[in-house]
Amino acid sequence: MTTSKLVYFFGGKRAEGKAVMRNLLGGKGAGLAEMDRLGIPVPSGFTITTDVCTEYYNRGKKFPPGLLKAVAAALKKVEKMMGARFGDARNPLLISVRSGARVSMPGMMDTVLNLGLNDTTVLGLAARTQNPRFAYDAYRRFVQMYGDVVLGLKPVTKEDVDPFEKILEAKKKEVGAESDTQLSTEDLEDLVGRFKEAIQKHTGAAFPEDPHEQLWGSIGAVFSSWDNPRAEAYRELNGIPSEWGTAVNVQSMVFGNMGEDSGTGVLFSRDPATGDKLLYGEFLMNAQGEDVVAGTRTPRPIAELESENSRVYSQLHAYSDTLEKHFGDLQDMEFTIQKGKLWMLQTRSGKRTGFAAIRIAVDLVTEGLIDEKEAISRIPPDAMNQLMRPVFDAEDQREALEHGRLLAKGLAAGPGAASGRVVFNAEDAEAWASRGEEVLLVRIETSPDDIRGMNAANGILTARGGMTSHAALVARQMGKVCVAGCETLRIDYKTHSMRVKGLTVNEGDWLSLDGTTGEVILGKLRTKPSEVLQVLVEKTLPADRSIVYQQYEKLMTWADRFRKLGVRTNADQPDQAEQAVAFGAEGIGLCRTEHMFFGEGKIEPMRKMILAENQAEREKALLRLLPLQREDFKGLFLAMGERPVTIRMLDPPLHEFLPHTDLEIRELAAGMEVTEDKLREKVDSLHETNPMLGHRGCRLGVSYPEITAMQTRAILEAAAEAQKESGLTPHPEIMIPLVGHVNELFHQAEVVGRVASEVAQEQNGEIPYLVGTMIELPRAALTADQIANVAEFFSYGTNDLTQTTFGLSRDDAQVFLTHYQQEGILDSDPFQTVDEDGVGQLMEIGLKLGRKTRKDLKVGICGEHGGDPRTIHFCHKIGLDYVSCSPFRVSIARLAAAQAAIAAKTKPAKTKKTKKKVTEKKGKKKPAKKVTKKEKKTTKKLKKTKKVVEKPKKTKKVAKKTKKAKKAVKKPDRKRGRPSIKKRSRAAKTAETRRRK
Amino acid sequence: MTTSKLVYFFGGKRAEGKAVMRNLLGGKGAGLAEMDRLGIPVPSGFTITTDVCTEYYNRGKKFPPGLLKAVAAALKKVEKMMGARFGDARNPLLISVRSGARVSMPGMMDTVLNLGLNDTTVLGLAARTQNPRFAYDAYRRFVQMYGDVVLGLKPVTKEDVDPFEKILEAKKKEVGAESDTQLSTEDLEDLVGRFKEAIQKHTGAAFPEDPHEQLWGSIGAVFSSWDNPRAEAYRELNGIPSEWGTAVNVQSMVFGNMGEDSGTGVLFSRDPATGDKLLYGEFLMNAQGEDVVAGTRTPRPIAELESENSRVYSQLHAYSDTLEKHFGDLQDMEFTIQKGKLWMLQTRSGKRTGFAAIRIAVDLVTEGLIDEKEAISRIPPDAMNQLMRPVFDAEDQREALEHGRLLAKGLAAGPGAASGRVVFNAEDAEAWASRGEEVLLVRIETSPDDIRGMNAANGILTARGGMTSHAALVARQMGKVCVAGCETLRIDYKTHSMRVKGLTVNEGDWLSLDGTTGEVILGKLRTKPSEVLQVLVEKTLPADRSIVYQQYEKLMTWADRFRKLGVRTNADQPDQAEQAVAFGAEGIGLCRTEHMFFGEGKIEPMRKMILAENQAEREKALLRLLPLQREDFKGLFLAMGERPVTIRMLDPPLHEFLPHTDLEIRELAAGMEVTEDKLREKVDSLHETNPMLGHRGCRLGVSYPEITAMQTRAILEAAAEAQKESGLTPHPEIMIPLVGHVNELFHQAEVVGRVASEVAQEQNGEIPYLVGTMIELPRAALTADQIANVAEFFSYGTNDLTQTTFGLSRDDAQVFLTHYQQEGILDSDPFQTVDEDGVGQLMEIGLKLGRKTRKDLKVGICGEHGGDPRTIHFCHKIGLDYVSCSPFRVSIARLAAAQAAIAAKTKPAKTKKTKKKVTEKKGKKKPAKKVTKKEKKTTKKLKKTKKVVEKPKKTKKVAKKTKKAKKAVKKPDRKRGRPSIKKRSRAAKTAETRRRK
Repeated sequence: MTTSKLVYFFGGKRAEGKAVMRNLLGGKGAGLAEMDRLGIPVPSGFTITTDVCTEYYNRGKKFPPGLLKAVAAALKKVEKMMGARFGDARNPLLISVRSGARVSMPGMMDTVLNLGLNDTTVLGLAARTQNPRFAYDAYRRFVQMYGDVVLGLKPVTKEDVDPFEKILEAKKKEVGAESDTQLSTEDLEDLVGRFKEAIQKHTGAAFPEDPHEQLWGSIGAVFSSWDNPRAEAYRELNGIPSEWGTAVNVQSMVFGNMGEDSGTGVLFSRDPATGDKLLYGEFLMNAQGEDVVAGTRTPRPIAELESENSRVYSQLHAYSDTLEKHFGDLQDMEFTIQKGKLWMLQTRSGKRTGFAAIRIAVDLVTEGLIDEKEAISRIPPDAMNQLMRPVFDAEDQREALEHGRLLAKGLAAGPGAASGRVVFNAEDAEAWASRGEEVLLVRIETSPDDIRGMNAANGILTARGGMTSHAALVARQMGKVCVAGCETLRIDYKTHSMRVKGLTVNEGDWLSLDGTTGEVILGKLRTKPSEVLQVLVEKTLPADRSIVYQQYEKLMTWADRFRKLGVRTNADQPDQAEQAVAFGAEGIGLCRTEHMFFGEGKIEPMRKMILAENQAEREKALLRLLPLQREDFKGLFLAMGERPVTIRMLDPPLHEFLPHTDLEIRELAAGMEVTEDKLREKVDSLHETNPMLGHRGCRLGVSYPEITAMQTRAILEAAAEAQKESGLTPHPEIMIPLVGHVNELFHQAEVVGRVASEVAQEQNGEIPYLVGTMIELPRAALTADQIANVAEFFSYGTNDLTQTTFGLSRDDAQVFLTHYQQEGILDSDPFQTVDEDGVGQLMEIGLKLGRKTRKDLKVGICGEHGGDPRTIHFCHKIGLDYVSCSPFRVSIARLAAAQAAIAAKTKPAKTKKTKKKVTEKKGKKKPAKKVTKKEKKTTKKLKKTKKVVEKPKKTKKVAKKTKKAKKAVKKPDRKRGRPSIKKRSRAAKTAETRRRK
Repeated sequence: MTTSKLVYFFGGKRAEGKAVMRNLLGGKGAGLAEMDRLGIPVPSGFTITTDVCTEYYNRGKKFPPGLLKAVAAALKKVEKMMGARFGDARNPLLISVRSGARVSMPGMMDTVLNLGLNDTTVLGLAARTQNPRFAYDAYRRFVQMYGDVVLGLKPVTKEDVDPFEKILEAKKKEVGAESDTQLSTEDLEDLVGRFKEAIQKHTGAAFPEDPHEQLWGSIGAVFSSWDNPRAEAYRELNGIPSEWGTAVNVQSMVFGNMGEDSGTGVLFSRDPATGDKLLYGEFLMNAQGEDVVAGTRTPRPIAELESENSRVYSQLHAYSDTLEKHFGDLQDMEFTIQKGKLWMLQTRSGKRTGFAAIRIAVDLVTEGLIDEKEAISRIPPDAMNQLMRPVFDAEDQREALEHGRLLAKGLAAGPGAASGRVVFNAEDAEAWASRGEEVLLVRIETSPDDIRGMNAANGILTARGGMTSHAALVARQMGKVCVAGCETLRIDYKTHSMRVKGLTVNEGDWLSLDGTTGEVILGKLRTKPSEVLQVLVEKTLPADRSIVYQQYEKLMTWADRFRKLGVRTNADQPDQAEQAVAFGAEGIGLCRTEHMFFGEGKIEPMRKMILAENQAEREKALLRLLPLQREDFKGLFLAMGERPVTIRMLDPPLHEFLPHTDLEIRELAAGMEVTEDKLREKVDSLHETNPMLGHRGCRLGVSYPEITAMQTRAILEAAAEAQKESGLTPHPEIMIPLVGHVNELFHQAEVVGRVASEVAQEQNGEIPYLVGTMIELPRAALTADQIANVAEFFSYGTNDLTQTTFGLSRDDAQVFLTHYQQEGILDSDPFQTVDEDGVGQLMEIGLKLGRKTRKDLKVGICGEHGGDPRTIHFCHKIGLDYVSCSPFRVSIARLAAAQAAIAAKTKPAKTKKTKKKVTEKKGKKKPAKKVTKKEKKTTKKLKKTKKVVEKPKKTKKVAKKTKKAKKAVKKPDRKRGRPSIKKRSRAAKTAETRRRK
């Protein structure tokens, strides 16, 4: 530490740092240095390294020796470069101080601008610029920023008014000014005085007039902001180690408000919304960056700068090109024109929409700036989603929002856009849809009874339930627009209406749902399908007419080249299957046969089967179901050709197929020619306390082997028929659900084998098939070696595996799961992203044991997690064969799988190197074993809390009294792996305070 | 094999075998050899070893070379010893042939007696005994037995009449005989002829006249019976390896029916019901063993033999003493007196009641015959249960039996004694009980529909079903008296009555069930608590007045000396806790605080707390609960002294505290001054689809930390008060339930720590306490290393851990769990005995990970399983610190824990040696790793099924057609670890048959 360089100068093409030193200089510092090296004019300055920050903390918040000298030396160079002197009365150098970590982080210290001003230098600035008002305005802003950022005069709660704004408003009132610009030089001078008074009052010390004191105060504030609670929380959430630290950037000021030959603006090297290759941005003449942000003046499109100042415009164009080429990515730049001279203040990777992300990545490959791997790695997988979903007409949507038609906001549970007339139950949805109405189904929450209604609706809106509620899951699988958990809705089924925001929405009213944003909008908006769908599914747009589609196609081709994981789809219907194939699905990973029973004409024999008094009656009912199931399966096989089709045997508890209300029971009893009592008795006898853990899955098949037999027969006969019709051999994979013990699977496999041999004889030929099982119970994963003796494939049912591993009901957990995430108890919703420590561990155990018994065991995942990019990375890592997800996530999965494969090849080396470097530098012991993200966080936390706890000096008596309390707080600290909770430090401090009393 | 000895002679004190050769000679053979060695007269004979049996199978059911010669040699010695010759026309040696495996096994071949008789030798026998009728009766019996046992002429179904009995009955009708004894010598001779004809007709071959052919046929039949389906099923159920094989015992006949100086009987060395030290048994003069069994003549108590033949009686006494001393255990012997000479035919360990088991074990130690370890190891832990269960008044019971009121005998499926009025369905049971009647529920068999009725009844009696039938399982679980499978009952649900022994029992009649003996007695008997309870709990009987108690106490003292596991109890109330301490509990392993909230005056503030609209209201309600909880805890602490008391924080979902019916809601709303709607809304909002996986356990504490805070305060304040009152320091262990993620525990531990420090300051002194967690979710076990950073102890909540690991709701599973056990899918109820492969594996993982983080982590179990002997063995094996169970199981747990410790010290060496021996002898590869019981069974099965599958020779065409079917059946066979299902072979054969078609 002591020997390494503490400060890196930049400016005049003499930058000491460069882009690759990002870890040491932070993103901003490295970017400035690199720009300087590229010959792009940046105001001269220097960067204090991140190592200094770490050292600062190691020394108990003291600057390391040598820093003072290094800063002084760098400052000297800056003065020379800029032709001004820091603190000089006549020609003062003004500087800005900013934080700059390795990655962009909210919660860090804001910028301090115009540093170096005081009662003396302000006069020099006024004289040199011949603009006293400008000088005092700059001074006023500096004192305000310094007071806020460095000295902590800021609003405490959200309701508080900023103390400086309060003074400012009072002054404006006094002089009758409506806007800041109406304040005179004297007014501004007076304000500086009042600001300083407020500071004196608040801090008990005078505002520092000495520019060096100002500088060191700001540097210290930057370092301190690294450890503030908001930054800490962000780091924890994103797994950023505390050791990274932040750099400090000290840079000379340039001004865009020095007259009409000055100006400021932001610039993107391409359109970040569409990805179009054109300069995109805004500027204002005679203005500072603040003015753009404040919105008091409307910025002008960057193209207009050409007529304003064509020289500067073409310089900007050139710099933009240079920077984009150099960094190989969309650049987001800030610039200032000071008296006709263009200065670039910052450049960084630009944020962009999903559309743009894809467009830019593909274009950059075409332009030879990046390779295909890089292009794939850059696209957030969810960006693919935007390519698939219908969208509202942008004009319509904007207008609606502007007219205050935003009714509510819920969870964006099923992306896309849909308008329709509101109905409040599934039957109405079906009825209305059947007469050609566009409907939206609005429910408090949905259940399997609503499936057909959901299918008939354009979109689903629910008042309760989270991202993995029944409505959300089914909607995503159906590709329906869904806004869920919209808690402000007060739905009244009786009156067929709902109240929200004091408005009543009645049955038949038009509503629009934006499932990508969660917006619920009053009235009807026009929608249109995405171009990709117009090409692939609707086939209304020729592929060669859509640039979006061509980019999608190119990207997918690249992804397929790199990925190792297979991608299948969860689909129960031929049309779903066809869609999925169009999106690139290589098979069906999960066909839920029970959904088929809700189809027309099927629920009745299904109910007969359930109500059967004995095996004979049951078999009679099953005989009626057989041809219906066979037709369903045949459609799937024809849609999938020779691709594997995994069919799960009947899974849900039987009561799901029976009605539950008195009225429904009465009606059904009449229709089925059974007494109402008998039907009710059956319904009651099937009632379960915890249906999720009840008589379902293979337990049904063990109780009623004839159901398994019928389904097997339907599958194999359908396969035989499909083969005859198409000439292609279907590959059914028969999947037994909810196996916990190998004997259950063995029992069911025997039934399947027996029927298969019967069908083979009848059909005069065998149909290839596999028998396998879901691994969706902890016991199945733990005894996978036994189960693999019978199973020819595994498919992780991570929905149920998550429920049982956590002991968490998906239907009930939303009540506290959100709170858990807010409290930082869980990082993410375990029903969306596989919990690697628990569920993931079971997956690894199951995989290892299963392949120990059967080397060639095919293992996939068919839970909702199969379409989640983070989970897909995990699946790749542990060595699954494939993931299976809903049709509309197939493209996402293909991309994520490719990213995982690429990351696996490149990352390990990188990470290792970085870690080693850090470790060596800090002189710490290298961890003995692989440290997980969690552990890392935890270890760090540990040290910190300890510090807090060890601080107070207590008398012996107090110490004894509170030993226990201390123990409670310290206990978890004793060992490695201290859990991380956001509020830890606060809690520790509270305990601390208590002890001192 | 070829070099080892095939046949072991015994007789005339020259036995070649001995007791320790049990594995080689079987139990019976070893016993005979040992008796001979001890100088006890046994009819001479020889034993063909179990190795010959194995070799017989290895050679495809052929006798190994050398056997013929060895048998001939041994037979020669027998002839010499007995002074008769096998097949000799004038002085024929008659022999018996019996199977004899290492352990007693049902389903094996029955005995063949009188072997060696044919049309020639029968004349010799008649001449020598001067009793032609005796000779022909013996001949008739022999042909019948041989035809049945060796040649397979037996009834096929239960309804079939025995073919020989049919002939016998016909003959009796012809000659007008009412009983067998009325048949003349000529009649018997004629019967022999007719039997032989039937055999000729059935087998197509003549009855073998050659005694040697008879002998070898019988030997082959014994070996073959080893592999019959019933024996196989039994072996599988009991984990007996097929390799063990059976021995064959060939022994010369002696006859108890040669006149009034002959006789036969059975003898126990002590009373097997009470354990009293006196000769116990029955005899008949001039009779054969068959006559005793048939019940045509009533046997006389053994004491009467003294007057009949005092010489023989004292010999018997001496032999009994010798054998008991020699084997160090209660002996169950058979004897025959032939013309005044006493022959001992068999000796073995006697079956006994739980009472007797304890009495005998303790007495044998006192007598110096066995040591304490041996005494402990011999007592089935459930025997302790008998010491706890109510008993009939001995006087009443004796009187009832003497007056012939014993109605029937069934399986002793649920120990204890209960009288009640008979009802024949569950609804009646509930209805009668609700009006205060004592009822017994009588059913042909029970189903889950009967659960509530079973709960209302004092006892359950069924006509069908075994020890693991639904009735038996549920009754034991409920602690109900149960007699099951009482097949003589003819129950008629229509008339609400049953017929038995010609009597009709009507609804409402009084009946008494002895669930310890299986006796069903007419009328009402008085019951009283067991003596142990009278001493320990009721304190109505002084300890020094009860021998039973003294034995109990002695046994427990020994058990405590050997056991390593601690034993705690699950108790929520001071009286429960006191009882448990009386039974030897060393602490409380689980106090369920929620039970306390149902107490008087507590449910109302609890409900107020739940209905609170905000934290302030909730805290107000909690403040009212605080003193009530404090009182509860104080009582517990005072009862437990300084013993640790583990208190679980509020666990169940809140809706359990609210009413659910409309009426209850209305009433409560009025009482609580809230609107009915509001209350209903709350009830609805708390409704959960799967409450077991819902908002409960620590999730409540995380949502409402003020609940945890209140409970912590109540615990610590109670502890402080108890300490002041008693001078003893309580040791509370605060247990956070349902932790799945370390962060949950950390959150709760912080709350506890904070309150603890407050209380410590207020109380001016600290109270020692620990914070720990239940491990009851798979995720907790899998991440136990993280959790142990916070937890100071673990307690396995195996109820919930079983539910989540299996994905099985205890409330709902009974519907199919019984069926699962019947189908052999599960060996036992996983809610009774911990499933070692799944749940147990998680326990091991959790323990290992937990102790990795915290070496001194205290780990116990507090699920229902904590009182299950098999589970206790497992807990000892994996290294738990303690088990916790209900007060009434504490004694069982102490015993089982001692047995586990003793077994662990002695068994490994033994087992290893035995295994090695077997392995080497059989010339098989030693398994590479530890083979579990399951795997062992499985491996064996594998070989066998393969054989079956490989047998048929098929044409190519058929083979192709059915390849798939074969695959389905063979698949599981390919690998180690084939699952065991009872019906496997049948299924394989079915498939087989199909293939042949």
